Amino acid sequence: MKLQIAIDLADSSTVLDIVDRIYDVIDIVEIGTPMVMKEGMAAVKRVKEKYPEITVLADTKIVDGGALECGDACKAGADIVTVLALSDDETISDVVKTAHQYGKKTMADLISVEDIGTRAKELKELGIDYIAVHTGVDMQKRGKTPLGDLRELVQAIPSSMCAVAGGVKLETLEEYVRERPEIIIAGGSLAGAPDVRKAVLDMKRKMSEQG
Amino acid sequence: MKLQIAIDLADSSTVLDIVDRIYDVIDIVEIGTPMVMKEGMAAVKRVKEKYPEITVLADTKIVDGGALECGDACKAGADIVTVLALSDDETISDVVKTAHQYGKKTMADLISVEDIGTRAKELKELGIDYIAVHTGVDMQKRGKTPLGDLRELVQAIPSSMCAVAGGVKLETLEEYVRERPEIIIAGGSLAGAPDVRKAVLDMKRKMSEQG
Repeated sequence: MKLQIAIDLADSSTVLDIVDRIYDVIDIVEIGTPMVMKEGMAAVKRVKEKYPEITVLADTKIVDGGALECGDACKAGADIVTVLALSDDETISDVVKTAHQYGKKTMADLISVEDIGTRAKELKELGIDYIAVHTGVDMQKRGKTPLGDLRELVQAIPSSMCAVAGGVKLETLEEYVRERPEIIIAGGSLAGAPDVRKAVLDMKRKMSEQG
Repeated sequence: MKLQIAIDLADSSTVLDIVDRIYDVIDIVEIGTPMVMKEGMAAVKRVKEKYPEITVLADTKIVDGGALECGDACKAGADIVTVLALSDDETISDVVKTAHQYGKKTMADLISVEDIGTRAKELKELGIDYIAVHTGVDMQKRGKTPLGDLRELVQAIPSSMCAVAGGVKLETLEEYVRERPEIIIAGGSLAGAPDVRKAVLDMKRKMSEQG
């Protein structure tokens, strides 16, 4: 089971301050969509330049132009590229094909998808590597969590392909770990913690205790 | 009726070469999603610095984090910010609220939405300024055009809110103009033309002849 830190509220300079403190204990560093929209692939490039061994996910949320956009992210150094699950199958296939040509992986984000089980099975057939249930920050404000969606996901596809994102924190981690997803993604509860290294280690410890 | 050029295959330096040639004849300059993913808001900033009077659309395709991401685009100078129509209503509302606080406008992109009429009416109620039918480049490869979708859209909402994108070119322009959308968006047929100024003027002429 892997822990992914989603970094949304930094820029390509300050993201290195965060990564400097956790590069040896984190499994995946996500450059979040707000960072991509502000600075493009700058943060992906800077993290990979300094830490070539770290797995970096670019949360591009591709929905069209699959080959072009995925290719640009791979060229910038991303190891995992995200695509929206509700994209047309044509786009999903192009993202998969392109990422695999570069030796990289893909994650489909199920945000706003209603029939999670059905779409997850289709995405698996299309060659996607990881499939994430994701309660967006805007829906979290309404009290929604991704736990029910995760339970649906692990019924539909192998747990080795499953990821979960959406407000996961130390206090609720246990519920998610119990479903055995491959990747647990935490954003504010790690990147926004007073001591990011301690926050990562606390979560990792809890994951391995239950693991 | 306005003409919007979608610039996808440039970077923040070369985009100015294009805008230099058309700033006085184009209605809206779109910084396309591939450019946003590569360089973030760099191109938006550079175009607005040189041409503050030009209307610039940032094709951010927001799907979550509406307030944050829309706010960043507005701060960078975007006059119109895009959101995916299939985002949760909470996200749409946050994008609308944020853009309007900055005195900017919003466009919802109906890509991958099945029931265009119903969603368009909902988006109108949520306060979106423009609603675009959009056949993505990946679906265009399969021969799909946005004409049928546009006909559905203009039945559902006022034509002053309607936009169309997806492979529109000089040869097919007439069919789109006939439906009277507020904004016609052309990408490769303008930005990829040997003479971009001539291509824009040819389209503008055809639009006014029918207008």
